[in-house]
Amino acid sequence: MPEEKRVITLMTDFGYSDYYVGAMKGVILSVHSDVHIVDITHGIAPYDFIGAAFNLMAYYNEFPRWTVHVVVIDPGVGTQRRPILVVGDKHFFIGPDNGVFSLIYEREEWIRVYHLTEEHFFRSTMSSTFHGRDIFAPAAAWLAKGVEPSHMGQIIEDYMKIPFPKPVQQDTNVAKGIVLYVDRFGNCITNFDTEFLQNFLGEDFSKQTQIIIKDTRIGGIRRTFAEVEKGTPLAYIGSSGYLEIGINQGNAAQVLQIRRGEQVTIITAR
Amino acid sequence: MPEEKRVITLMTDFGYSDYYVGAMKGVILSVHSDVHIVDITHGIAPYDFIGAAFNLMAYYNEFPRWTVHVVVIDPGVGTQRRPILVVGDKHFFIGPDNGVFSLIYEREEWIRVYHLTEEHFFRSTMSSTFHGRDIFAPAAAWLAKGVEPSHMGQIIEDYMKIPFPKPVQQDTNVAKGIVLYVDRFGNCITNFDTEFLQNFLGEDFSKQTQIIIKDTRIGGIRRTFAEVEKGTPLAYIGSSGYLEIGINQGNAAQVLQIRRGEQVTIITAR
Amino acid sequence: MPEEKRVITLMTDFGYSDYYVGAMKGVILSVHSDVHIVDITHGIAPYDFIGAAFNLMAYYNEFPRWTVHVVVIDPGVGTQRRPILVVGDKHFFIGPDNGVFSLIYEREEWIRVYHLTEEHFFRSTMSSTFHGRDIFAPAAAWLAKGVEPSHMGQIIEDYMKIPFPKPVQQDTNVAKGIVLYVDRFGNCITNFDTEFLQNFLGEDFSKQTQIIIKDTRIGGIRRTFAEVEKGTPLAYIGSSGYLEIGINQGNAAQVLQIRRGEQVTIITAR
Repeated sequence: MPEEKRVITLMTDFGYSDYYVGAMKGVILSVHSDVHIVDITHGIAPYDFIGAAFNLMAYYNEFPRWTVHVVVIDPGVGTQRRPILVVGDKHFFIGPDNGVFSLIYEREEWIRVYHLTEEHFFRSTMSSTFHGRDIFAPAAAWLAKGVEPSHMGQIIEDYMKIPFPKPVQQDTNVAKGIVLYVDRFGNCITNFDTEFLQNFLGEDFSKQTQIIIKDTRIGGIRRTFAEVEKGTPLAYIGSSGYLEIGINQGNAAQVLQIRRGEQVTIITAR
Repeated sequence: MPEEKRVITLMTDFGYSDYYVGAMKGVILSVHSDVHIVDITHGIAPYDFIGAAFNLMAYYNEFPRWTVHVVVIDPGVGTQRRPILVVGDKHFFIGPDNGVFSLIYEREEWIRVYHLTEEHFFRSTMSSTFHGRDIFAPAAAWLAKGVEPSHMGQIIEDYMKIPFPKPVQQDTNVAKGIVLYVDRFGNCITNFDTEFLQNFLGEDFSKQTQIIIKDTRIGGIRRTFAEVEKGTPLAYIGSSGYLEIGINQGNAAQVLQIRRGEQVTIITAR
Repeated sequence: MPEEKRVITLMTDFGYSDYYVGAMKGVILSVHSDVHIVDITHGIAPYDFIGAAFNLMAYYNEFPRWTVHVVVIDPGVGTQRRPILVVGDKHFFIGPDNGVFSLIYEREEWIRVYHLTEEHFFRSTMSSTFHGRDIFAPAAAWLAKGVEPSHMGQIIEDYMKIPFPKPVQQDTNVAKGIVLYVDRFGNCITNFDTEFLQNFLGEDFSKQTQIIIKDTRIGGIRRTFAEVEKGTPLAYIGSSGYLEIGINQGNAAQVLQIRRGEQVTIITAR
């Protein structure tokens, strides 16, 4: 591993009004002061580990090798759910074993998952309700400081994987998917990834298509918002590599009343 | 003091839409670029120094020795209220003398409070409405850079202490307290601290208890959320060391209509 | 340029619930790990580059020389609007050429604007919807790492300048301006700057004045909030150097129903 300063990223549902994130940062810096702490977001909706899983997938690979990605969306804190460390191809992930790393397990070629059990890498006083501060933060700091994962716990195989729904091609002309995530702009990110779309529509999405969501029909896949008038719905390949439904300078989720899980159908011309 | 990189934490009520926090960070880095600036939160409710005092108490001790904790909740900016530097057992605190450090005065064994008067440690141009940028940020940066507190102002004794209400044992079986703080999850943090509860209930809280808040009766003190069904209220010792009232995966403040200041009664079985 | 660690500031309308800001930070650190990344705010209202322009003006000068200020308010992403790098007197600015830097062009004595065209300073995979991650973040990191602006693109002269409305003196006794910006406290920042007011009212604003906004008349320009009763409207010179209208410990925008663009009139006694 390089001698560059290590990075620890933080994503939580702790919000922006309480001390929780601050306490985690304090614990990290008390263990290892020579680290970059990077706030991803603390505005994940409370307990929404599905949303967190999507977001994590979209940012982790932008970071330098062996960044430690801490994710604390932890409705089961204090239960038997295990604190885990995931070692991937070139990133570390620390958080609760509740499925929040499911998309990492799908994406990474090489995965090893450790149940964090070695308590001398925990905060000296433990609570039953704040493992972000008491387990995940110090474990991340020790890891960034160079402790070997194998010293922090035991390898487990039965870690929790949540199946994320995949799009389905129903016949030559019809494919069905869902909205995976709605962002702050109201853009609706579907589970149609670029690879699926290329198989279904051809390399350059050259087939004529209609995208149907609720009562709205959208013609074609655009390259950018500005190809339609302001206020008009459109479909396009978003920055995370999935088909998205948006409105140029508008809020598609609000206007079209779309929520996560909404069905999306693509129909091609014959 | 160690040669490690110094930490400056920031907690304000400046919110997340304006330049105020950015300006403070710029001033800090212009004085001393080799410092960790750590955002605690800028989402304290406007002018809520009571809430800020609670949060500060809950995070400051997690940070490395001689971290500089800047707190700017400052409704009295521009008045006679003094800008102060508090030197505690092993932390510094900088902010307005409006009581926001009251819980620090209670907690720290050794306290010295300086009225910040030496203007060459202030921003060169001063406003009457933004001492966060003009006094507190540069003072924090100079302090982190190694300036002695005694060079920055005069020791004062008449700094403002706000009395935080303490729980009261009314008779052998009844104790009364209040809700000190409500967090983003709707968890209601009371002023019953662990020490009080141990005196009242025995070392391991072994006495049978009922916690009464508004019309709700909650039986027993739990270790963790998951000991009750999803949606059920419970009482537990929270991560800041106080008795809290929450709902497993729910929002107790909303559901039970609890606000800060609400009375909480604990009754033990005879 | 000094050998001090370089600073990159980030201001966006990406909000606090999605991965967008995190992805930008990852890209920056992957290019150049030895940099301070400073969050200004990500809570600019969606697409509000006028608000961003105001905020930028109010913080950029607090930062050390040759800080790189990244501003991503980018409704035209993916269109012909150009990504630009602005070199000012002692700061860099990176973002879309949509007018967000208009107040910088007014303020800085020396300006050079580059159209960012050299794609080897971009992210290797480009999207059409997230230039914050794909162009602005990596360009900022390369710049902070020491790449010369002239290696990153071509100088342009026709960059977009949005005219910000100036206050107007209508006769000896009357001046008209508008509300430029409303902050989180509800303080209403007008476009009357200190220089204009000194010309109109005398060096020390000594003339008796009335400030009129909607149906409210406010007497005099105060130094600080506390000169009026709690809950009372007042006018004062704010920390950004403009006349502001606020309410002592209250929210002027809400109470007086003021929005950006509202007319403000100053009348002096004869």
